[in-house]
Amino acid sequence: MSQASQAATSQDRRIPVAVLGATGSVGQRFVQLLDGHPWFRVAELTASERSAGKKYREAASWFQETPMPDAAAELEVLPTDPRSKPLASRLLFSALDSSAAAEVEAPYARRGHVVVSNAKSHRMDRDVPLLVPEVNADHLALVGGQSNGPGAILANPNCSTIGLVLALAPLYRTFGLEAVSVVTMQAVSGAGIPGVPSMAILDNLIPHIGGEEDKLETEPLKILGQVAEGGIDYAAIKISAACNRVPVIDGHTECVSVKLSRPASLQEVRQALREFRGEPQALGLPSAPSQPIHLLEESDRPQPRLDRNRDLGMATAIGRLRPCPVFDYKFVLLTHNTLRGAAGGAILVAELALA
Amino acid sequence: MSQASQAATSQDRRIPVAVLGATGSVGQRFVQLLDGHPWFRVAELTASERSAGKKYREAASWFQETPMPDAAAELEVLPTDPRSKPLASRLLFSALDSSAAAEVEAPYARRGHVVVSNAKSHRMDRDVPLLVPEVNADHLALVGGQSNGPGAILANPNCSTIGLVLALAPLYRTFGLEAVSVVTMQAVSGAGIPGVPSMAILDNLIPHIGGEEDKLETEPLKILGQVAEGGIDYAAIKISAACNRVPVIDGHTECVSVKLSRPASLQEVRQALREFRGEPQALGLPSAPSQPIHLLEESDRPQPRLDRNRDLGMATAIGRLRPCPVFDYKFVLLTHNTLRGAAGGAILVAELALA
Amino acid sequence: MSQASQAATSQDRRIPVAVLGATGSVGQRFVQLLDGHPWFRVAELTASERSAGKKYREAASWFQETPMPDAAAELEVLPTDPRSKPLASRLLFSALDSSAAAEVEAPYARRGHVVVSNAKSHRMDRDVPLLVPEVNADHLALVGGQSNGPGAILANPNCSTIGLVLALAPLYRTFGLEAVSVVTMQAVSGAGIPGVPSMAILDNLIPHIGGEEDKLETEPLKILGQVAEGGIDYAAIKISAACNRVPVIDGHTECVSVKLSRPASLQEVRQALREFRGEPQALGLPSAPSQPIHLLEESDRPQPRLDRNRDLGMATAIGRLRPCPVFDYKFVLLTHNTLRGAAGGAILVAELALA
Amino acid sequence: MSQASQAATSQDRRIPVAVLGATGSVGQRFVQLLDGHPWFRVAELTASERSAGKKYREAASWFQETPMPDAAAELEVLPTDPRSKPLASRLLFSALDSSAAAEVEAPYARRGHVVVSNAKSHRMDRDVPLLVPEVNADHLALVGGQSNGPGAILANPNCSTIGLVLALAPLYRTFGLEAVSVVTMQAVSGAGIPGVPSMAILDNLIPHIGGEEDKLETEPLKILGQVAEGGIDYAAIKISAACNRVPVIDGHTECVSVKLSRPASLQEVRQALREFRGEPQALGLPSAPSQPIHLLEESDRPQPRLDRNRDLGMATAIGRLRPCPVFDYKFVLLTHNTLRGAAGGAILVAELALA
Repeated sequence: MSQASQAATSQDRRIPVAVLGATGSVGQRFVQLLDGHPWFRVAELTASERSAGKKYREAASWFQETPMPDAAAELEVLPTDPRSKPLASRLLFSALDSSAAAEVEAPYARRGHVVVSNAKSHRMDRDVPLLVPEVNADHLALVGGQSNGPGAILANPNCSTIGLVLALAPLYRTFGLEAVSVVTMQAVSGAGIPGVPSMAILDNLIPHIGGEEDKLETEPLKILGQVAEGGIDYAAIKISAACNRVPVIDGHTECVSVKLSRPASLQEVRQALREFRGEPQALGLPSAPSQPIHLLEESDRPQPRLDRNRDLGMATAIGRLRPCPVFDYKFVLLTHNTLRGAAGGAILVAELALA
Repeated sequence: MSQASQAATSQDRRIPVAVLGATGSVGQRFVQLLDGHPWFRVAELTASERSAGKKYREAASWFQETPMPDAAAELEVLPTDPRSKPLASRLLFSALDSSAAAEVEAPYARRGHVVVSNAKSHRMDRDVPLLVPEVNADHLALVGGQSNGPGAILANPNCSTIGLVLALAPLYRTFGLEAVSVVTMQAVSGAGIPGVPSMAILDNLIPHIGGEEDKLETEPLKILGQVAEGGIDYAAIKISAACNRVPVIDGHTECVSVKLSRPASLQEVRQALREFRGEPQALGLPSAPSQPIHLLEESDRPQPRLDRNRDLGMATAIGRLRPCPVFDYKFVLLTHNTLRGAAGGAILVAELALA
Repeated sequence: MSQASQAATSQDRRIPVAVLGATGSVGQRFVQLLDGHPWFRVAELTASERSAGKKYREAASWFQETPMPDAAAELEVLPTDPRSKPLASRLLFSALDSSAAAEVEAPYARRGHVVVSNAKSHRMDRDVPLLVPEVNADHLALVGGQSNGPGAILANPNCSTIGLVLALAPLYRTFGLEAVSVVTMQAVSGAGIPGVPSMAILDNLIPHIGGEEDKLETEPLKILGQVAEGGIDYAAIKISAACNRVPVIDGHTECVSVKLSRPASLQEVRQALREFRGEPQALGLPSAPSQPIHLLEESDRPQPRLDRNRDLGMATAIGRLRPCPVFDYKFVLLTHNTLRGAAGGAILVAELALA
Repeated sequence: MSQASQAATSQDRRIPVAVLGATGSVGQRFVQLLDGHPWFRVAELTASERSAGKKYREAASWFQETPMPDAAAELEVLPTDPRSKPLASRLLFSALDSSAAAEVEAPYARRGHVVVSNAKSHRMDRDVPLLVPEVNADHLALVGGQSNGPGAILANPNCSTIGLVLALAPLYRTFGLEAVSVVTMQAVSGAGIPGVPSMAILDNLIPHIGGEEDKLETEPLKILGQVAEGGIDYAAIKISAACNRVPVIDGHTECVSVKLSRPASLQEVRQALREFRGEPQALGLPSAPSQPIHLLEESDRPQPRLDRNRDLGMATAIGRLRPCPVFDYKFVLLTHNTLRGAAGGAILVAELALA
């Protein structure tokens, strides 16, 4: 009997939570990561009408590399429907796709739920904080005046944004940033299931991911921005992004060049990255990586298969830091897109909000 | 009986040529591409001492997707040794690795051979032209005063350089270029055989290729330069390159951003790329693509598996041309690295020199 | 202007044909292979209601490695509907999925069309010949009494059946066959588009293909059977099949062990395979491979990427022929599943029927 | 500080062991798996002369997905040389390739070491037990009279043999076995590093692995045999194997058909597999899987990526158990080739020997 199931049977004092859209790719990751979580207990799972009423064991076509947690397997799947079917859990993790999210997340919040969402639907809303806990924990202040009250929506950024912002934050704070050029090589798991057809990606790559470049060029500006009257003052950085899908299962790699606002030596840049810490580390949040950035010295790292699981997939690995003949410095970063970049990141947001 | 073998038997008036290093990856491509060539006939093949004396059929572990040409299969492999073993062919295609090339190419040239080389050894030599026939045919003028006479060395650029230069040349000529940022995603065939271990690249990518970034940052400056007293005046463009190995068999993809010297509309840029032609097209060289650049309009192209064989692998495909928030324009280009980027490119160089 | 388009403009005397289900994976292969065919000319293309009325250029998301033929690109896509929309072509190539095929192929035949089908729907019908032209050309005799008259349905076997039957036929005829054990490793293109999700097949294989083992255990018995009163007397061979999907784009590999009815030396088996020829070779049909079986002697062949395109993808490669400690002999075979195994095979069937 | 390093500093009472050939692929797995082992402590590491004298951190090009254990990283690599350099550890894990193993394993044993070897060199020696601890723990009796005394060599079978034997053992014991037909699809990690070139396996498979079929046809006969005067009486089973390399990183999949000696219902076969347990389970050995065989009911399992890590990679997963039209039953099995199939299996052998 797993830790989670054991806990669930008797006087489990952990906070009950629901996962919205629990049968899909990100939903399964939430269920997997929340198994044995010290603060949260999966109490409710929702999915589309088609799955509602079935046990999760039957409803989800489980394809994680660890077995489905027993406790979740036995839960009856509920419909994702804020109007007719109230949920008992106050905290909801939303793994819904953006069209479903656009429809139900605000209604759930208005019924008093705190929705930590992985969908893009409300990310750029004026009064919704877009959170990378190490970077902009202070943006939680937006929640007070949120139009979705009495509950709230907390947004988790796009999977390729999170790693980028973790790398940019210490540079922006220490030296200022004028311009960023980023080219991504993104894993197929980012497209979910069925996602990218195998015929489209074997012996191939696709130099386009719908909407991704726009997210990567705008979300960091909000995250690195300042809380102001009526929302966030965006950071004034020019970002250019080119996004590619490559035949890698998990782990988004990004080649980044940065132009700083003031001169900095390689040693100073290295130090800023290596010493970067944030609220999750200060508070010792359960899902916080020991350090947000692992700075690698080997000449050919980070590599997705070898480095995506550092700090249980919650850290960003940065390597090949070197001067750039056009900008100031360039480097390669790698982030596990379905752990730190999706479900894991959202759980960290919830931990931060609770703490 | 193939066209080549047939021709070889009787009064074949084609020019006899030798392939140096014929058993390796690039060497096999030379043998494959020269089969049935209208001007050239493979008369001699060389390899290391270990293979010398064997028939090519036995010496080469052939792994091309078309069968080994009969005529080549029956040739006896000669040692690569300019001192003791003279070659009868005046024109030599060198598929040697750089250490062997550094040793023997100049001696072959001094014995009167014209060596068209795919190795990096002499690319940046002051008096060796580094040729992309559509771009700098006039650099052949360097040959006259070459210290390697009475023969000559003609150098074919690095596989990732060729596609980049084909894209940059019309922009440089029409608008001027100040800066270029390029991130490559390169095929494993570029590393030859055995090359990249499968364990290193399945479900993975490697954000480093030894020496490649340096080549990409310097070779274009020579190719786009002007013939001057005593060599080439390099073009004054700042280039920053980041090179990655990805699990693709053939075809190097490059994400490029360019800063032009003078303003240009998207329409003007498009036109410059689309209308670009060079000497090979004017002269109707046998290996010349109908147009050096295929400008694609689909939102998700070029893709290696679908676009690498355009114009028999001799054209560069460019897609996703769009404004860049940091520079002026950005786009994606794709070049077949072992066809246009290696053996095919070198054959085109020889055709140009002959014409 | 391509050969096909040129021919189409003036006095093209080739037979007009239609492709049913022309926008899908197999449909595109028909359009590609029929371009420049000496006997047939693509005159009509059908697809689902959703595509009908559009030009083929717009309707099909073309993903072949050669460009869409110009003549086909300009055709208006017709609905696949035997009742309301008669087709002018007598000969129809059906690339429909099995549910659509089950609905429309018989009605088309009853309206007088000859339907050469790649779908499984009618393969085992008593009066429908299931044809591998080298093996059972005499089964065309079934057509006379077909209940679908005045037209007819001619069925192309399953992609993994065709290669197997080409290998078994000479053994069955020469030595008799008691039992066959076959394990397949099948390419993802066999599942069409979108087909197998990339998440399901990268760094993975799937030891199951729905319905495939049953086809492989039964179709060969009909193909190798004898024309008899009222249908085919099936061959009495026990076949056991295990089917796997592997991360290969094109080319089905099969590991086969056979128990013969009478003793045979390795040399006799080798000779039977190598000398096998059939009606397509005797008649010199345009799509016939020079020899149906390429017997390879190298210890590690056939391999999909290196051997699938032999004889333009119309031949089966057999290698590693050796004694089997349990049965009599074992070997490995490879067949291009979307060429010989689908569209190419169906075109050969049509050529045979016409000849 | 990891569990292992911590333990190493003070009164660590664990048994010191050496890993021979510690820098290679299997050697690294030994180092990884022995980190934190409750009984064994890595005290010595050997490699070729070239690496000797360096710290392991420098000598090994580490490519495991978890970081190199700190304790091992600081060890000085010793030369693999039984004559001039005695080792202090009595227990040696040999990850040597077969030529090195043939040279040094017996000398080490004669100096009193117990060598648990992953190499093939001594597997079929008359007095060397070839051990799958769940199956033939009683073969340890051979050690008493071993000519290599006073130490001993204990052999771990080939990676594809281990899974097969785990599946065959309960069938052989319960029903008897007459014949086995097995086709493997083996991961590239089985070939070590550099091993299979990426050019050879992307979009491809290789239907041949040197020497592998012979091992698979003979090793099980010894393992399933009976201890007798002067060695092992081999089991009388006919086995036919065909081995393929596929683009999968870890996990060997095998399609197996078996002919039993006496009739058995599907239910009986299922029960025999599911209830199979051995000495490691009875003794509660630290590396023993909870059950040697995981019998899966889903129609498309086992799959390498999803099932190779069951019971920490020490269990064999069996699925698709069904009647075979030619033999009696067929099924698919999957074993992690570098865990259970190599280093993990050898550690289990050592645990058994110690217990």
